[in-house]
Amino acid sequence: MLVSTAYLCGMQSEDTIVALATGGGVGAISVVRISGPEAVIYTDSLIKKPISSMASHTLALRKLYDEDGLMDEAVISLFLNNRSYTGENVIEISLHGSAYISQRLLRAYLKLGARMAEPGEFTRRAFLNGKMDLAQAEAVADLIAAEHKFAHEQALHQLRGGFSDDIKLLRSKLLHFTSLIELELDFGEEDVEFASRSDLMDLVVEIKRQVDELKDSFALGNALKQGFALVLAGRPNAGKSTLFNALLNEDKAIVSEIAGTTRDALEDKLRIGDVSVRLIDTAGIREATDAIEREGINRTFKHIESAGASLYLFDPSGISVADLKADLSVLKERGKRIWACANKLDIFNGDLVDYKAAVADVLQEELWELSAHERASVSLLRGEIAARFSQDIAQLGQLTVVTNARHSAALELCSEELQMIIEGIESGLSGDLMSFHLRTGIRALADITGEIDNEEVLGEIFSSFCIGK
Amino acid sequence: MLVSTAYLCGMQSEDTIVALATGGGVGAISVVRISGPEAVIYTDSLIKKPISSMASHTLALRKLYDEDGLMDEAVISLFLNNRSYTGENVIEISLHGSAYISQRLLRAYLKLGARMAEPGEFTRRAFLNGKMDLAQAEAVADLIAAEHKFAHEQALHQLRGGFSDDIKLLRSKLLHFTSLIELELDFGEEDVEFASRSDLMDLVVEIKRQVDELKDSFALGNALKQGFALVLAGRPNAGKSTLFNALLNEDKAIVSEIAGTTRDALEDKLRIGDVSVRLIDTAGIREATDAIEREGINRTFKHIESAGASLYLFDPSGISVADLKADLSVLKERGKRIWACANKLDIFNGDLVDYKAAVADVLQEELWELSAHERASVSLLRGEIAARFSQDIAQLGQLTVVTNARHSAALELCSEELQMIIEGIESGLSGDLMSFHLRTGIRALADITGEIDNEEVLGEIFSSFCIGK
Repeated sequence: MLVSTAYLCGMQSEDTIVALATGGGVGAISVVRISGPEAVIYTDSLIKKPISSMASHTLALRKLYDEDGLMDEAVISLFLNNRSYTGENVIEISLHGSAYISQRLLRAYLKLGARMAEPGEFTRRAFLNGKMDLAQAEAVADLIAAEHKFAHEQALHQLRGGFSDDIKLLRSKLLHFTSLIELELDFGEEDVEFASRSDLMDLVVEIKRQVDELKDSFALGNALKQGFALVLAGRPNAGKSTLFNALLNEDKAIVSEIAGTTRDALEDKLRIGDVSVRLIDTAGIREATDAIEREGINRTFKHIESAGASLYLFDPSGISVADLKADLSVLKERGKRIWACANKLDIFNGDLVDYKAAVADVLQEELWELSAHERASVSLLRGEIAARFSQDIAQLGQLTVVTNARHSAALELCSEELQMIIEGIESGLSGDLMSFHLRTGIRALADITGEIDNEEVLGEIFSSFCIGK
Repeated sequence: MLVSTAYLCGMQSEDTIVALATGGGVGAISVVRISGPEAVIYTDSLIKKPISSMASHTLALRKLYDEDGLMDEAVISLFLNNRSYTGENVIEISLHGSAYISQRLLRAYLKLGARMAEPGEFTRRAFLNGKMDLAQAEAVADLIAAEHKFAHEQALHQLRGGFSDDIKLLRSKLLHFTSLIELELDFGEEDVEFASRSDLMDLVVEIKRQVDELKDSFALGNALKQGFALVLAGRPNAGKSTLFNALLNEDKAIVSEIAGTTRDALEDKLRIGDVSVRLIDTAGIREATDAIEREGINRTFKHIESAGASLYLFDPSGISVADLKADLSVLKERGKRIWACANKLDIFNGDLVDYKAAVADVLQEELWELSAHERASVSLLRGEIAARFSQDIAQLGQLTVVTNARHSAALELCSEELQMIIEGIESGLSGDLMSFHLRTGIRALADITGEIDNEEVLGEIFSSFCIGK
């Protein structure tokens, strides 16, 4: 069995790190976090009544001084003797929420000998001190970034070790399998078989099924985590941009709650109930003679190909039923799911019957109806969109969904090794080659929870954290 | 003596308030704060292992649940039995720093019956429960907004009650004076004089001197708090905008630290060491025939009139000594302090002797020399500017400086009443009129620390706070 580097590296760090743990922006309080062997001693040298005699998990109100005098009166929290996030002595200081004060306190700690924490360094120490495994540590970053219910649930499940437990169970089954194979190797010259090949085959097929199920959940898991991509497609002047804005404006209060939402000309996020949608506005589809315009249309099709769904918008006064059918057929060829929506119905006097038939014919879907300028109409459409995507979530029906590309790649590797073994059993592969594939597969699973000793991989994982965590 | 409404209103609030205490933006943690009689009970209904048996000033790690399940695992801080910021039971919850989680926790508390705190409501409760007086409560908002050393020092001094002590001392002196006058009134018919009029005169003159000193400190105090206003003036093409950008760019790293820095086309903040400067770029000064341009130049002069200082920039290749003298004379008439600076010296080959003489003649100042494109040259200029403004701070020489317009107005009112008394003593004003002016003056001082029962005034003061404080 592989030895976890969590234990190998589980000595206390030699240096003490410090960082602002709360975000920027004006708030009533800011929190500075210090972790390491000197956390208490450094803090004592900034206050008059020492905290070193206090018990863990207690609070103290203290005046903080540097060389220039009083910095602030603040609440100090103590987490001692391993009973902390990092597994080291941790001090948290709740300051009045001024950037001037928190900067001055950080400077005071640096002057005493502390070092600014790198992104994710607190969590990295928690991992190295055995407070959590690597999948749990990654879940911390996911939890902070979670903007909606699904991402939050998955991150919490993973943080609480649910995913790690699944992986460990699979790993222990593979280890059991390996021990049987290797026992045979030890008695190799006596030509014994401790397990029937057909029993082994059943076992490895079952393990592979479980690994594949987790691996395959990544496609949907990733979409759920990032938000469902919905492309707005249609001919020029179908009202795509009006709808884009109408969908977003109604949602404005919620969108503005989310920090760091990326906003460019093409894409924006909206949240409908518990469903997060990445709305992508695209260039109008038409026969383009101009090279630049053709490039825009090419991009539209690329979006349609990779999106979770595309909403084709059309103005029934401006398009014939034949043209509509032609457009929908092209889209259906390129995209996963196409929905069609007739717009500008507040000014359309004709009959939609033929259009509805065309949509049913090509897409096997109902035609949605919209007046993008009318609030109630846009609300109905939002409801439709949310209902469709919610079905995807409901279909999942399993608690553990892989949302991390690194985990997905490791499961993929494990699955390939198991395939080799299945083929090996059939073709009478030698025991030592079987053992080699098994150990490679086990190793891939071990990587997920962090039984790896690769400093480069650790660096990459923790550098994506925010400072102070 | 007036009865403080702090005591009159010092009953516990009936409702429990909740707010996010940390600022927006992504951080490792967010803190939600709850205050009021139900703070502990509400929290207990979100966790499985109750905190109600725990002692004040302790910490507990707990999983938080709402109807939809697990919200987060968080550190809960308890501040009980009056030993809190507000004087009520206060719970603070350190969450993983995701807006989704903090919004969900806020919703859970609201559902239990808590109410979203209004801006400043926690501090308002601290005031109403006698944890601080009004001047101290105002200092909390100043402390959070403090962006530089001076503003920070003054806010801390005021928060710790230094300013309130000064005011209370003045008030007790006036009360002593009043008691002497009113004693005479009680014995009015016997025509006694308990204090010699000349002793009274000495006392009130001394008190008025102290009140005026505080009142007069506001002009500089306000400039120090907001930053010194420095206008960049000069003819078109003197290089004002280049210098504006050069001064700011060098400072960029520091400026970006300050949240909420206002930035428009005209004005920006820079910090040089401990000095905060509001740098104002202006339209070039010249004989304008165009109405719009004339308006721009009028504004320039208005800025010069109200600014702490103006820096007149000129290109010696582009202006005669006579024109320079004319410009400086006009500026000197309008502005408080004018500094002159010759620019573009990297490409100027002439002699500056006559220009230096002109500056010495009109301004009684040295001519500063600059090449705005050279980093070292701009650094020297920054040093000069900081040195001049630092002298203003050094000249203060007193610890308490009034930085709040409300306090300044109250001191002004008190000073006027004291002037009435001085004139009254000279003209033999009746005792009851003297008493009236004294009580009005005392009342003005009492307003500063909050012995007022005016709900409207309180509302105005606390509404300028940020939510969560």
